[in-house]
Amino acid sequence: MAKELKDLTSKEENYYQWYNDLVNKAGLAENSAVRGCMVIKPYGYAIWENMQAALDKMFKETGHQNAYFPLFIPKSYFSREANHVDGFAKECAVVTHYRLKNDPDGKGVVVDPEAKLEEELIVRPTSETIIWSTYKNWIHSYRDLPILCNQWANVVRWEMRTRLFLRTAEFLWQEGHTAHSNRQEAIDEMWKMIRVYQRFAEEYMAMPVVVGHKSDSERFAGAEDTMTIEALMQDGKALQSGTSHFLAQNFAKAFDVQFTNKEGKLEYVWATSWGVSTRLMGALIMAHSDNNGLMIPPKLAPIQVVMIPIYKGDDELKQILEKMDQIAAELKNRGISVKIDDRDNVRSGFKFSEYELKGVPLRMAMGPRDLANGTIEIMRRDTLEKQTVSTEGIADLAVNLMDEIQKGIFARALKFREENTTKVDTYEEFKEVLETKGGFILAHWDGTPETEARIKEETKATIRCIPVDGDDTPGVCMVTGKPSARRVLFAKAY
Amino acid sequence: MAKELKDLTSKEENYYQWYNDLVNKAGLAENSAVRGCMVIKPYGYAIWENMQAALDKMFKETGHQNAYFPLFIPKSYFSREANHVDGFAKECAVVTHYRLKNDPDGKGVVVDPEAKLEEELIVRPTSETIIWSTYKNWIHSYRDLPILCNQWANVVRWEMRTRLFLRTAEFLWQEGHTAHSNRQEAIDEMWKMIRVYQRFAEEYMAMPVVVGHKSDSERFAGAEDTMTIEALMQDGKALQSGTSHFLAQNFAKAFDVQFTNKEGKLEYVWATSWGVSTRLMGALIMAHSDNNGLMIPPKLAPIQVVMIPIYKGDDELKQILEKMDQIAAELKNRGISVKIDDRDNVRSGFKFSEYELKGVPLRMAMGPRDLANGTIEIMRRDTLEKQTVSTEGIADLAVNLMDEIQKGIFARALKFREENTTKVDTYEEFKEVLETKGGFILAHWDGTPETEARIKEETKATIRCIPVDGDDTPGVCMVTGKPSARRVLFAKAY
Repeated sequence: MAKELKDLTSKEENYYQWYNDLVNKAGLAENSAVRGCMVIKPYGYAIWENMQAALDKMFKETGHQNAYFPLFIPKSYFSREANHVDGFAKECAVVTHYRLKNDPDGKGVVVDPEAKLEEELIVRPTSETIIWSTYKNWIHSYRDLPILCNQWANVVRWEMRTRLFLRTAEFLWQEGHTAHSNRQEAIDEMWKMIRVYQRFAEEYMAMPVVVGHKSDSERFAGAEDTMTIEALMQDGKALQSGTSHFLAQNFAKAFDVQFTNKEGKLEYVWATSWGVSTRLMGALIMAHSDNNGLMIPPKLAPIQVVMIPIYKGDDELKQILEKMDQIAAELKNRGISVKIDDRDNVRSGFKFSEYELKGVPLRMAMGPRDLANGTIEIMRRDTLEKQTVSTEGIADLAVNLMDEIQKGIFARALKFREENTTKVDTYEEFKEVLETKGGFILAHWDGTPETEARIKEETKATIRCIPVDGDDTPGVCMVTGKPSARRVLFAKAY
Repeated sequence: MAKELKDLTSKEENYYQWYNDLVNKAGLAENSAVRGCMVIKPYGYAIWENMQAALDKMFKETGHQNAYFPLFIPKSYFSREANHVDGFAKECAVVTHYRLKNDPDGKGVVVDPEAKLEEELIVRPTSETIIWSTYKNWIHSYRDLPILCNQWANVVRWEMRTRLFLRTAEFLWQEGHTAHSNRQEAIDEMWKMIRVYQRFAEEYMAMPVVVGHKSDSERFAGAEDTMTIEALMQDGKALQSGTSHFLAQNFAKAFDVQFTNKEGKLEYVWATSWGVSTRLMGALIMAHSDNNGLMIPPKLAPIQVVMIPIYKGDDELKQILEKMDQIAAELKNRGISVKIDDRDNVRSGFKFSEYELKGVPLRMAMGPRDLANGTIEIMRRDTLEKQTVSTEGIADLAVNLMDEIQKGIFARALKFREENTTKVDTYEEFKEVLETKGGFILAHWDGTPETEARIKEETKATIRCIPVDGDDTPGVCMVTGKPSARRVLFAKAY
């Protein structure tokens, strides 16, 4: 293995460093010259594009349309919705001027003090306010509803401690913003979209998630209900991977968006919003990778099969490449993305190592003996199993393997989660499991913010969600002994 | 025709108002609460998505990869490349603070004066500087080259007079940024991409363009050569629709990006950049629309065929919809996007008018008599020709019509351009044609910025480009009588 290429810290040694090494060395992203803002590199962006394409298709199949709203939001909009302004972090990028000028004292440019904005503009941290100020003009009658819009955009939250993909000042996301004529329809929409996210996480990212409601204290600022999908990372910490909010009439009231109902009466409009971000890239990395590198599920892999010729001299290379081109064409015909790596300035061992690092699901290598025998060596990234197979029917095999690897990665992650989800009944046990094993803990809670806050303060674990699936037997709170409607999901979290 | 819906100003009456009416009433875009920033509405965004998909495919087929770079650029970066800072407009959004706080004197939020940035950040107006500061870390050896990156992003230029799609403070675009090991390869890349833009404009937008070089004074700030595609709008004005720049080693020198060549020597890297933006939406509208509304070429139309049932009572509707569903399925099978509009709260005349306004290429209407006869009425948006045809083989017909309409719209635009392109030999004639007829004017020019400036000042016409195709016979300048290498393209422009 080409140690000089990888030189990855192992995750057992230093999980934090292992993650950073992966992101950097696999060519996913890097820090930029601008504090907290990342550069998403081509390989990382290609994975994000695959995520986008799958999600966008699911959004459209559920009746949504894309639109685009301004990057900037007038400062005053933030104070319109009381809970929104109280609850939402105020770390935002603020635009105060609109012009530079040549520095009169020398070289370079300075901000032109005469070009000060009357009202400061905030770079959107989320777009409820600007979108609902727009919807006011779009909605008059029940006939204008529902509005089912989504936006793919960049947003900025001035995070102090940033980490590539997981927490960056600027990140990419989609935000759905829907408007409805009645409460139930909006609630149904919130549910529909969290289930879309669940399906995306499980079927595309091969990452099992727990679906549930956030507790009151973890709810989105301005929402009446927030649903979440929570995934378990390999270090036993939870990662909130997507949220869907029922906003009731809060933003409609803040921006005075009313409609005439079928009975001719004015009513405020009901709202949802929902989003996932480039944070999912962090989730993908931490859910599946190992000490050899990434493990990209085939459905999201920019390169699904890499082919590497093993040869001495140009003649051998030419013959092997001819055969590889033919196989690649067959694979592409079956919808598999293929790369033939015929670089002559690096050894094949280096290439093997590189594509393991990049998490390419299937590697094929062919040497002169393979060529003579009509065989090819294949290696699955998920199991690292090598096998020499006939090139006859290789396309069928590859199609099947894509499916098997996708399912295999999911099964492994699910097994990990099951092994790392513990039901506890006492607070002592809770603290012990949290210390020794980590992971998800299912425990009874009395439903009060006081108990929740105490647990958080004493253990750093938070309620990830009140699950909507699985065991819903009532019980008593592990801390206070008061009644509990059902076990809720605790974990330390990113 | 449903006058109440359209109520479009005719383009002969007021071209400016006609354009705004179209953009607003067809649901493409609208002004937002933020000065100069637009909201791109779902129908407009769907057209942009189709543009993006076609362009993105062409970029990838020519070996490019997408990536993402920060929204913010440190102020000092702008002064690094001397021509860039001198030539580039300084109307930029400037971020000076990173936090809001609750107003101590009452309601709302204020900018926290303690959260002032050490160095102001500029919202990217274009990304050469931040990208070349990144490439410095990516490029060491000739083996790292070429880098062929593209970015889909929003950019901000604080325009004082804005107009939906044509000139907005924030707009969406793509910007390609490539790095090469030698001059010729970078020049070839500039050419390759302007030809990609030409092909996109002509084959997808059905909009003929003239390809050429910008004159020295119209060149991009920091470029050694700028190529452009210039389209002619229906009011006789030119619209610059895409540019491709050869940046020589200017940005590599500004950001000290060197590579070790095959001979082991350090050299500065060669660069190009190229971009098109949501301005293309404006071009599309102004190139093809008429007084009935938009005319979207089939290859970019979000809805290619709309089907409208004409009926009395639920029974008739049910029967017609059954047949329509069947036809729609056939069309979708052939890759045609179809919408059946069965709204019962608007008249079919209103619907007819609405889809003309929205520029849907083909309309199909079916009443009870059609149903009985096995026929359907079709209307082409480009010619407004109606025809009653058999529903047998309707999918074949629709596929052919998509192709015919696409070509028909291009042919009409090409004819318009040919009729509105005039060769003149004297300055008198030039001024007269410009006043009376407008359009493109091909005339000889001595190649000096002085003559160019004089013409611009006296006539408001600018050199759109020095064409690279067509008649390249030398002559003498229409103003000074000095030698001219070939006729160049003049016009008044957007």
